[in-house]
Amino acid sequence: MSYDVLVVSAHPDDAEVQMGGTLVKLVDEGLRVLLVDLCDGEPSDFAEPGVRVAQAMRAAAILGVERVFLGGQDRLLADTQAMRLEVARLIRLHRPRLVFGTTNATIHPDHAVAGPLLSAAVFLARLDHWARVPGGELLTGTEPWNVERLFFPHCKMEPPWGNDLAFAVDVSATYDRKRAAINEYGSIFRVEEGDRLLTFYEAEDAYFGRLFGVAYAEIFKSHSPLLVASPTVFLPGLHA
Amino acid sequence: MSYDVLVVSAHPDDAEVQMGGTLVKLVDEGLRVLLVDLCDGEPSDFAEPGVRVAQAMRAAAILGVERVFLGGQDRLLADTQAMRLEVARLIRLHRPRLVFGTTNATIHPDHAVAGPLLSAAVFLARLDHWARVPGGELLTGTEPWNVERLFFPHCKMEPPWGNDLAFAVDVSATYDRKRAAINEYGSIFRVEEGDRLLTFYEAEDAYFGRLFGVAYAEIFKSHSPLLVASPTVFLPGLHA
Amino acid sequence: MSYDVLVVSAHPDDAEVQMGGTLVKLVDEGLRVLLVDLCDGEPSDFAEPGVRVAQAMRAAAILGVERVFLGGQDRLLADTQAMRLEVARLIRLHRPRLVFGTTNATIHPDHAVAGPLLSAAVFLARLDHWARVPGGELLTGTEPWNVERLFFPHCKMEPPWGNDLAFAVDVSATYDRKRAAINEYGSIFRVEEGDRLLTFYEAEDAYFGRLFGVAYAEIFKSHSPLLVASPTVFLPGLHA
Amino acid sequence: MSYDVLVVSAHPDDAEVQMGGTLVKLVDEGLRVLLVDLCDGEPSDFAEPGVRVAQAMRAAAILGVERVFLGGQDRLLADTQAMRLEVARLIRLHRPRLVFGTTNATIHPDHAVAGPLLSAAVFLARLDHWARVPGGELLTGTEPWNVERLFFPHCKMEPPWGNDLAFAVDVSATYDRKRAAINEYGSIFRVEEGDRLLTFYEAEDAYFGRLFGVAYAEIFKSHSPLLVASPTVFLPGLHA
Amino acid sequence: MSYDVLVVSAHPDDAEVQMGGTLVKLVDEGLRVLLVDLCDGEPSDFAEPGVRVAQAMRAAAILGVERVFLGGQDRLLADTQAMRLEVARLIRLHRPRLVFGTTNATIHPDHAVAGPLLSAAVFLARLDHWARVPGGELLTGTEPWNVERLFFPHCKMEPPWGNDLAFAVDVSATYDRKRAAINEYGSIFRVEEGDRLLTFYEAEDAYFGRLFGVAYAEIFKSHSPLLVASPTVFLPGLHA
Amino acid sequence: MSYDVLVVSAHPDDAEVQMGGTLVKLVDEGLRVLLVDLCDGEPSDFAEPGVRVAQAMRAAAILGVERVFLGGQDRLLADTQAMRLEVARLIRLHRPRLVFGTTNATIHPDHAVAGPLLSAAVFLARLDHWARVPGGELLTGTEPWNVERLFFPHCKMEPPWGNDLAFAVDVSATYDRKRAAINEYGSIFRVEEGDRLLTFYEAEDAYFGRLFGVAYAEIFKSHSPLLVASPTVFLPGLHA
Repeated sequence: MSYDVLVVSAHPDDAEVQMGGTLVKLVDEGLRVLLVDLCDGEPSDFAEPGVRVAQAMRAAAILGVERVFLGGQDRLLADTQAMRLEVARLIRLHRPRLVFGTTNATIHPDHAVAGPLLSAAVFLARLDHWARVPGGELLTGTEPWNVERLFFPHCKMEPPWGNDLAFAVDVSATYDRKRAAINEYGSIFRVEEGDRLLTFYEAEDAYFGRLFGVAYAEIFKSHSPLLVASPTVFLPGLHA
Repeated sequence: MSYDVLVVSAHPDDAEVQMGGTLVKLVDEGLRVLLVDLCDGEPSDFAEPGVRVAQAMRAAAILGVERVFLGGQDRLLADTQAMRLEVARLIRLHRPRLVFGTTNATIHPDHAVAGPLLSAAVFLARLDHWARVPGGELLTGTEPWNVERLFFPHCKMEPPWGNDLAFAVDVSATYDRKRAAINEYGSIFRVEEGDRLLTFYEAEDAYFGRLFGVAYAEIFKSHSPLLVASPTVFLPGLHA
Repeated sequence: MSYDVLVVSAHPDDAEVQMGGTLVKLVDEGLRVLLVDLCDGEPSDFAEPGVRVAQAMRAAAILGVERVFLGGQDRLLADTQAMRLEVARLIRLHRPRLVFGTTNATIHPDHAVAGPLLSAAVFLARLDHWARVPGGELLTGTEPWNVERLFFPHCKMEPPWGNDLAFAVDVSATYDRKRAAINEYGSIFRVEEGDRLLTFYEAEDAYFGRLFGVAYAEIFKSHSPLLVASPTVFLPGLHA
Repeated sequence: MSYDVLVVSAHPDDAEVQMGGTLVKLVDEGLRVLLVDLCDGEPSDFAEPGVRVAQAMRAAAILGVERVFLGGQDRLLADTQAMRLEVARLIRLHRPRLVFGTTNATIHPDHAVAGPLLSAAVFLARLDHWARVPGGELLTGTEPWNVERLFFPHCKMEPPWGNDLAFAVDVSATYDRKRAAINEYGSIFRVEEGDRLLTFYEAEDAYFGRLFGVAYAEIFKSHSPLLVASPTVFLPGLHA
Repeated sequence: MSYDVLVVSAHPDDAEVQMGGTLVKLVDEGLRVLLVDLCDGEPSDFAEPGVRVAQAMRAAAILGVERVFLGGQDRLLADTQAMRLEVARLIRLHRPRLVFGTTNATIHPDHAVAGPLLSAAVFLARLDHWARVPGGELLTGTEPWNVERLFFPHCKMEPPWGNDLAFAVDVSATYDRKRAAINEYGSIFRVEEGDRLLTFYEAEDAYFGRLFGVAYAEIFKSHSPLLVASPTVFLPGLHA
Repeated sequence: MSYDVLVVSAHPDDAEVQMGGTLVKLVDEGLRVLLVDLCDGEPSDFAEPGVRVAQAMRAAAILGVERVFLGGQDRLLADTQAMRLEVARLIRLHRPRLVFGTTNATIHPDHAVAGPLLSAAVFLARLDHWARVPGGELLTGTEPWNVERLFFPHCKMEPPWGNDLAFAVDVSATYDRKRAAINEYGSIFRVEEGDRLLTFYEAEDAYFGRLFGVAYAEIFKSHSPLLVASPTVFLPGLHA
């Protein structure tokens, strides 16, 4: 089975908070999206083990995406060759054109690990001849795959971005579904009581939305410079 | 008459939008604050000439500050030696410890002018012997004055800041008065109808507030590196 | 008459060298493009006065664009309010969605002037009530116009860009026409003899092309962060 | 026992050289300070094993602080989950409002390790439910603790800082005690003979002091942007 | 046996592509150069195991340098204390004044590892008393060695550099030998068919050459700021 | 008469303070050096008009350089086309290989003017056909001249530099003559009483000297990236 988009995050809820509105837009464009959570997010603050994963699956359903967990240990996530190869294997298996991940993280140690891990996996996925590499067995039986673009949504817990963002996505039309997905996470947010983090997360999306004259926007950096066919890709509706 | 704080802005409403909450805090600390608007803000979108100045005076009254206008032409503000010396003269006259202004402006041409103009004025204000300088007559009769700190609040129309801000001020407790002051500007904002700019301005203050775990914050850069007596100045309440 | 695209440059040949391939792409997309040269490029190294302008007109014809000259003095270009308003007038008259200009120029003094001048003009063009502004007569009789995007192609004479570029445009398919347009400028390049500058200019386009896996690319920065409807605007052919 | 301040360094003498003057100021303000040295600094150039630790204890006594060693291997310090948790445990045990550490180190490999290790530990210290984390036993029995500020003094062996410093502390009044503490380290500095490194270290403090118009200053970056109650925290003596 | 220059790279061909022209210049100046490849570059795309190493030895012969391999696993290179000490041992053994390596790599995971590994090795090489360090046996029997300069050539697969390069070396006169050396690598480049990567690599050297008015140049950053005896070191031929 | 080196500064004493030690080194290498002061430095704090110029001439004699004044007004220096052309004329007349000036100045308004003014003059100096340029008469009768390198010494009054400096020059051996030259300026420094500024200036040179392991160093940026014949230009004594 192939996916058009892979989002590799440290924890369940990272993808939703960072780019939930964009995910819904991608799904609405007809793309198939797979979320890959390196950890299962345990322990969580307000629930027993297992609850957060169930919430994450419901959140994925709301967004219209699928989701897998790779079994890393939340808080103590390690950047191992085995995990790099496992992510590379998923990339080769699902052959996405777009991959999303983490960059420039200095606050949460799991985020700091997730960025270089994913960049490495994207690189390794496009190489051949793994049968000749000790430890490369995991990738034999899959074909090399070259991801077209690796983008990094902003993680709101990490240092704030300003003029150094690469682009923003208008998510005004899909923000309700983003909020609904996030609100599934009763294990980590006090949704009913106006959770402090949720309020902050929405404030960031509202700020960047207003900066561009829309209601909500999510912001991104790019792993490598952007090539476009024409500057008119930045003119909405021009050729519609 | 002396002031503790001078805020030199291009237009009436710049000081309020950029740092209205901070201004109220300064006033509440017992400091005397003077706003210096280089232009009078004419023409304005929604009112006849003269209305905006009257609104600006009411806004100043709400904030508890005083205000003067220097007669520059809005939109076509020029960085002249005369204007530099005039601002320097005000600095020498009022002898403020703190001055606030504009930096890194690339959108509004008046903002782009106001920054270097003010930096120059702050420098010129501390020099002596103006009687020997052709054109320096404006400063004779005033004593040299050395401003301690020149800070730059973020202008929300200009490029966004992220991790490059120097510090933020918690303005949660004074935000109502900031909003009330801004709302006086019916000549330029459609206050009743949820003006697009006002919504954006508040979104920025809310975003940076939430980033620091408070309701509202205003953000600043500094003209020169900060010297403190101890890192404990960043620990609220330590020595209270 | 309206244009979709305005390119405001200091000299004839700037637009061709910086973004000639992109211009042809825009024209091929059906957009109407006007080049605005602030100076007429006199004196030129290898020809009598007047020759360069004629060459510039032929180059424009090759690209499929139109061209006007604003009469500034090459080498001594000044950033005057009159010139700002004249450019703003052209923007209001022609109502382009895209404007291109210069940024971060520190080598050629005319380039250093052209950037802030254009940024100011783009801002002034969207304001109303010019009849009430002393010196604003030039803009009365035209309607405010809000340019959607202001982009800056790289000027190859100015400091090199690397990872700080915002996006690149694949101009492989239109490079022949770019080269043909540039080759018209016998007044400033020794086309027949492998001109040193022309060789350099093409080397930059070839380098950035190869960086992205194509033959030639032109690189751009943006005056403000980019908003897109979806990250899929960076996936060529996705929805074709 | 609780401490107000924790300083986590790679080696004995790092804390003294980087921020010895500031440490004395903190002590003089009545704060309790604990130095945590990840390594014991062996081998040292000019003494047998054990001498450096004794010198470090005497230096701590001069500064008025306490000191513990965590047993990492100097030169080969490793960023392990065990060491992260051990530092997190100390943070939870001692509940400091301020923590100091290392950033942007590219010269000494132990410094390069110490920065991310400490950032991770500060984050982990504020999490709960460690009993449910495999490997998290070390933190059970301690309560979550949220450090208010994580600051990084400049390590003089690492790349020089300029305008990118966040703030400086005036240490003129406490410099004698800083120098006395450093001079204890006869195992690594040739104190009597005008050690080359000692001369350099003092030159940096003198340079930044003079930059701010005082005799000596130590410089710092901050792990996250600074929030203050008012810009007047930068005006010494205002409310005294 | 001593070398004047050590180049520590992740893979055979890195040194040639990044700085082959500079290597020939160093050799032509009479310096002895040793290439240290952390991996042997297996598997390669177009040849059986062992072929690439033989090609690398021929490439070294063309450049006039010697070459050793350290046995790391290509694609999965790990930054271990053992490898750091092994590189430090080579530095102490060969006592080079100049060392070259990798910096700021975010694309190829082996490059990302090689940079910090080499910086650490350069640091460790100058320390004494390894007999007292557990694990430091590898360095006993060699004398401390202080490398004068650690430079980083640009790796063309990694993010592009612009104005942030430290210096460029004119390699026009030695480019033929660089090309000949690279062309030995039939195991990884389709030399006969105009390999896409080779075309790109040469485009970068041609671009930076033309930027400086020569045919080809290679670009470098420096691990620490540059000290010169006089600015006239930048004036070729002045004192010849 | 020709000079090898031109130093274009805003005020007498700028060249001495910024790069006096380097100037002596250049003179000792046999280069002819001309200082060009845009202003005459009046009024000065501690002397009557005219005294400072006489002091400046004595300082130049100590350094072994010559000096001219261009008559700009200290404090109110303006960046005019006439001044740009006058500096360009001096460059064409004296045909220096090296030019030194100011960059990134935001404190003293004269410094802020001097940088762009000089960059423009360096550019204009290499153009031909000035007889055809209205206002270009000043340059007719002189031949175009292409300066090889434009370097910027650090002005100690302006924001501090750190790792962003391009190179430093070891001035330990010539520092006595630098100090002697600066000490001539009794009109602006209280030399006998340990002037605060002089102490600061020497602290910067001592700091950067110690950073490189020498007694004193002066630091520089470059207007464009550096091209060298070989990295061995950074190895003192290699080919001696």
